[in-house]
Amino acid sequence: MTLFPVVDDCLTIGGVVVTELARRIGRTPFYAYDAAVMAGRVRELRAALPPGIELHYAMKANPMPEVVRHLARLVDGLDVASARELEIALAAGANPAGVSFAGPGKTGAELAAALAAGIVVNLESAREMERLAALATAAGTRPRVAVRVNPDFELKSSGMKMGGGPKQFGVDAERVPELLSLIGALPLDFQGFHIFSGSQNLDAGSIMEAQEKTIELALRLAVDAPAPVRLINIGGGFGIPYFPGEKRLDVATVGANLARLVAPVRDRLPLAKVVIELGRYLVGEAGVYVCRVIDRKVSRGRVFLVTDGGLNHHLAASGNFGQVIRKNYPVVVGNRVRGAAREVVSVVGPLCTPLDLLADNMELAHAGEGDLIAVFQSGAYGLTASPTAFLSHPAPAEVLL
Amino acid sequence: MTLFPVVDDCLTIGGVVVTELARRIGRTPFYAYDAAVMAGRVRELRAALPPGIELHYAMKANPMPEVVRHLARLVDGLDVASARELEIALAAGANPAGVSFAGPGKTGAELAAALAAGIVVNLESAREMERLAALATAAGTRPRVAVRVNPDFELKSSGMKMGGGPKQFGVDAERVPELLSLIGALPLDFQGFHIFSGSQNLDAGSIMEAQEKTIELALRLAVDAPAPVRLINIGGGFGIPYFPGEKRLDVATVGANLARLVAPVRDRLPLAKVVIELGRYLVGEAGVYVCRVIDRKVSRGRVFLVTDGGLNHHLAASGNFGQVIRKNYPVVVGNRVRGAAREVVSVVGPLCTPLDLLADNMELAHAGEGDLIAVFQSGAYGLTASPTAFLSHPAPAEVLL
Repeated sequence: MTLFPVVDDCLTIGGVVVTELARRIGRTPFYAYDAAVMAGRVRELRAALPPGIELHYAMKANPMPEVVRHLARLVDGLDVASARELEIALAAGANPAGVSFAGPGKTGAELAAALAAGIVVNLESAREMERLAALATAAGTRPRVAVRVNPDFELKSSGMKMGGGPKQFGVDAERVPELLSLIGALPLDFQGFHIFSGSQNLDAGSIMEAQEKTIELALRLAVDAPAPVRLINIGGGFGIPYFPGEKRLDVATVGANLARLVAPVRDRLPLAKVVIELGRYLVGEAGVYVCRVIDRKVSRGRVFLVTDGGLNHHLAASGNFGQVIRKNYPVVVGNRVRGAAREVVSVVGPLCTPLDLLADNMELAHAGEGDLIAVFQSGAYGLTASPTAFLSHPAPAEVLL
Repeated sequence: MTLFPVVDDCLTIGGVVVTELARRIGRTPFYAYDAAVMAGRVRELRAALPPGIELHYAMKANPMPEVVRHLARLVDGLDVASARELEIALAAGANPAGVSFAGPGKTGAELAAALAAGIVVNLESAREMERLAALATAAGTRPRVAVRVNPDFELKSSGMKMGGGPKQFGVDAERVPELLSLIGALPLDFQGFHIFSGSQNLDAGSIMEAQEKTIELALRLAVDAPAPVRLINIGGGFGIPYFPGEKRLDVATVGANLARLVAPVRDRLPLAKVVIELGRYLVGEAGVYVCRVIDRKVSRGRVFLVTDGGLNHHLAASGNFGQVIRKNYPVVVGNRVRGAAREVVSVVGPLCTPLDLLADNMELAHAGEGDLIAVFQSGAYGLTASPTAFLSHPAPAEVLL
């Protein structure tokens, strides 16, 4: 994890030695996010992607207000998934013109909030279109909308498939033309399409293939658009490496290929912005979860480091958030990264369940009471994707450095 | 789910029709817990268990203050897993004499809180014993302690194994005698043993076997006790049926067998109370999670009911809380339980992830926008075991009826 320099065998995050960081925060566990790492990801993407491609941040990955504020200044827009995320986006000073709202079960209150804020609503169904149109009629406004499309293909090698086959997300591609004609007759300001096929993909070939099909699909659907297409959100799906053997996604190759793919869009839909929407890729590697060893136990030949943090704070690292097979996240002893002596241990949390496991039989520097355990790749789907009230322990702190 | 009467094809919870309940609460989703169902469970257990067996409630299963207050009056004690749970127990009027605190990673603040409250601390390691003794010395008190034992056997057919082999829980049985001699020399008031081998078990034979071994182990360990044994917490492990084909645990058989097992305890350890500690069994069946259909979608031949609730409120029902294979919890349309027409549907939540699934290809009454979906067996490991901040939707309401 070369993103975080090690000084005197001690991890640094945002330039602060982890022991000093724990002292400043005054307690453990905590999540620490490195703003420079996030900025670096955006910079690398900008360099790899063809000019004119817009970059959006999907807040669901990490909605900490300071993180959103930081990224809002670096990217071209935000995607929100709830009214509360919209509030955070607006509080962060995001321009509503660049905010979009996707989600298959938007409540009336959420549609009303979106309408009031003037953001783009990604319509997930014909019924959602009708509900929004009714609100718009009552309010005398004409909200901007995009159609979220459930494509007729899948993103191969994807951590999670979000499109293809029967899905709760979006409108089946083959039924979009019918929906477009309805939109044209309603007080809705049609912007374009949102086509998202999957997430957490490390294979450039699969992403390029999905992007090609996505853009082909958008061009095909655009023929029936009730107004000039101004927006094509091609989703994201860019993964980050979590486990041994996983390689970084080759964004340079993806970007070069995308330059070729967007050429016909420029020709045929000259008003259309092409947007890539990324969550995990922008923040995942920038975050570290830090907890403290409370007890070191040896039980029948196996060493357990019992910490003050665990699955209640970091469900994904425990292997219980959608994983089929549990694998260890990258973990180190934060205040003794290499260590003079090393040993194979299991790092567990304080909960009364065997699920509460942060590292299973992993080689770490020899550690004991008071030492700090650092879990990398924790900037996305960490705190908010965890059952913080489970066993009623205090919530961890969060800091952006 | 005969625990909840159906009136005019409408589910009732605590005597209130679910549509009326939704109206009163003023919003969905919500968890509703039926106090009478909990009381019924306690009554049945008292009838099945031999006289003198004490019943404790493990608050981790559902720490809602009103639930804890209700159960505190019905059972003989509470088990807490954190300082916050201890606060809730004390606020509920629980007698500290009947409260115990287990957990492999108790912080200094938690040990101090336990000491102040005068509850029994279940010691999980030699080091924890030293830490508590140091606090006791400083405070000039003599806290009551039990030794949590990692048994040398497993609970067979168990949903989760908590003992046997190398574990982070408790002190390995073979090392307990050494610990007992240390306790005798410290300012600690030895009470007895906590031996817990597993959870969510529906097989009476496995539970009886584990209880027999547990009591044998306690009697064996008692030989080295530094003071008369006053407490033997034999854990619980009583399961509830979640899935088709699962049968209720035969507690009558377990109880009759237990009468035989405790006879030698009465003889050899006349001061010892035998405690059964149950969480899920007391509250799991008493709870229903209710959410509302926001959209009914047909995608490529499959019907999706999109609701305002999902895995962010009820991770276990989505199949992402320790389950190896996802199975549907028992689910009905609350306001149309049988229905004139029925169909196979998938019930999904509003989150942008395919993990957000409450019922997968399940036959339900035909339902649409505005209808209420009820998920049974939701009284334990429901709300607090869920990532409520995921996608920043409002938290569900909770009511005890």
